[in-house]
Amino acid sequence: MPAPRLLVPSITAADRLVSLSAADAHHLARVLRATVGDEVRVFDGHGREWLGRLSSISGSAASVEIVHEATPAPEPHVRLTLAVGLLKGEQMDRVVRDATMLGAFAIVPMSTTHVAVPPKAWKGSAVIERWRRVAIASAKQCGRAVVPDVSAVTSFTDVLRSAPDVPKYMCVEPSLSADGLETVGAGHPRPRMALALIGPEGGWSAAEVEEARASGATLVSLGPRTLRADTAPTVVLTALWSAWGW
Amino acid sequence: MPAPRLLVPSITAADRLVSLSAADAHHLARVLRATVGDEVRVFDGHGREWLGRLSSISGSAASVEIVHEATPAPEPHVRLTLAVGLLKGEQMDRVVRDATMLGAFAIVPMSTTHVAVPPKAWKGSAVIERWRRVAIASAKQCGRAVVPDVSAVTSFTDVLRSAPDVPKYMCVEPSLSADGLETVGAGHPRPRMALALIGPEGGWSAAEVEEARASGATLVSLGPRTLRADTAPTVVLTALWSAWGW
Repeated sequence: MPAPRLLVPSITAADRLVSLSAADAHHLARVLRATVGDEVRVFDGHGREWLGRLSSISGSAASVEIVHEATPAPEPHVRLTLAVGLLKGEQMDRVVRDATMLGAFAIVPMSTTHVAVPPKAWKGSAVIERWRRVAIASAKQCGRAVVPDVSAVTSFTDVLRSAPDVPKYMCVEPSLSADGLETVGAGHPRPRMALALIGPEGGWSAAEVEEARASGATLVSLGPRTLRADTAPTVVLTALWSAWGW
Repeated sequence: MPAPRLLVPSITAADRLVSLSAADAHHLARVLRATVGDEVRVFDGHGREWLGRLSSISGSAASVEIVHEATPAPEPHVRLTLAVGLLKGEQMDRVVRDATMLGAFAIVPMSTTHVAVPPKAWKGSAVIERWRRVAIASAKQCGRAVVPDVSAVTSFTDVLRSAPDVPKYMCVEPSLSADGLETVGAGHPRPRMALALIGPEGGWSAAEVEEARASGATLVSLGPRTLRADTAPTVVLTALWSAWGW
């Protein structure tokens, strides 16, 4: 079994001994039955990772002695932000989980015209905190040392405004004539940053498509079939890495 | 709202009037509140589709008058079979659903060394029937006129034996040195048929990797992070279409 991976956001390269959260200590002691001397990995959520050993552990506290810095899984060459129309609870969790695993640099839950999730389900900080926990759990599991930032729910217009000079790819229904994703980036240098926009289950309004087009976004279709909104993020990320290199 | 799509496996090009199943009639009448004259689409599950209108409907029977043959969503150029190590109930349903949506020609649920699902969960025909219903529901929803065949559970060795002359791609952990999927097909003509092999949650045994290699399979890694077994099929299908065209 691979060594457990633990997120310690405050860790620095100077640290020789780090304390784990009570939740991590509990999980290591009670679920994984870890004992002193067991190998673990500690990462900071921003791309650095260390190999360590448990130097103390109880059900409520644990500390790790750092052995040496480790080489983390490489990050994609492109800092890709995924802005995705709000989906229902489990679907949105799955999008955050899979986008983390597939190397998104940031995730923006987006309110759009056809979002069908009632505002009370996403107003307030509890739901954002849950998505952040999902992103952390996914990073731990997939071996990633970066936890993508999950922002507060942002309006479609503000998402476009926040990225004026960044290549933008809006995923649209196959019926809207659009470039296929296999043409993305052909003949263009690979960007340093990019923004992928995916609508909610109800799709985009005509006004949103126009607004995106006016802001310079490229409309792309993800093949000739209609994809589910919670699968489209995995497809667009994979297609972009296929074009740009993983 | 797009016209409802209905699967009628027995339909032929000579038919002018077709009867729907009791389940479809019930769904149209009770859930969609469809009435005589409403437009529907009828497909045969093998790639042909027709536009029609409801000519009679009750809660238990309905018939459709065929208006003309329609152009179905195009199928991929490559007949790709996805063989996937058995996963737990909901995960396997999701794999069948997404592979249908992403254009797999056939789906083979596979028993392998590290499959963790108990045999009683997949022996017998009930589970295969459930996966076939999932494939049909997904084809209806995504606009596909082909329903991929879902075969009986097949052993890893028999899957390899069944495809001696077909290009085979085995998805492996990033730690096994392997070609990245972005190199698949570079410099080779696009095949007519291909087989993608994806392991169960517990991954492949060393013997399975050797057996696949000996049978001529190419080992491919799906990027530098560890993907969940139920997401890997979507990633490998997307990457292959990115290389071969959608």
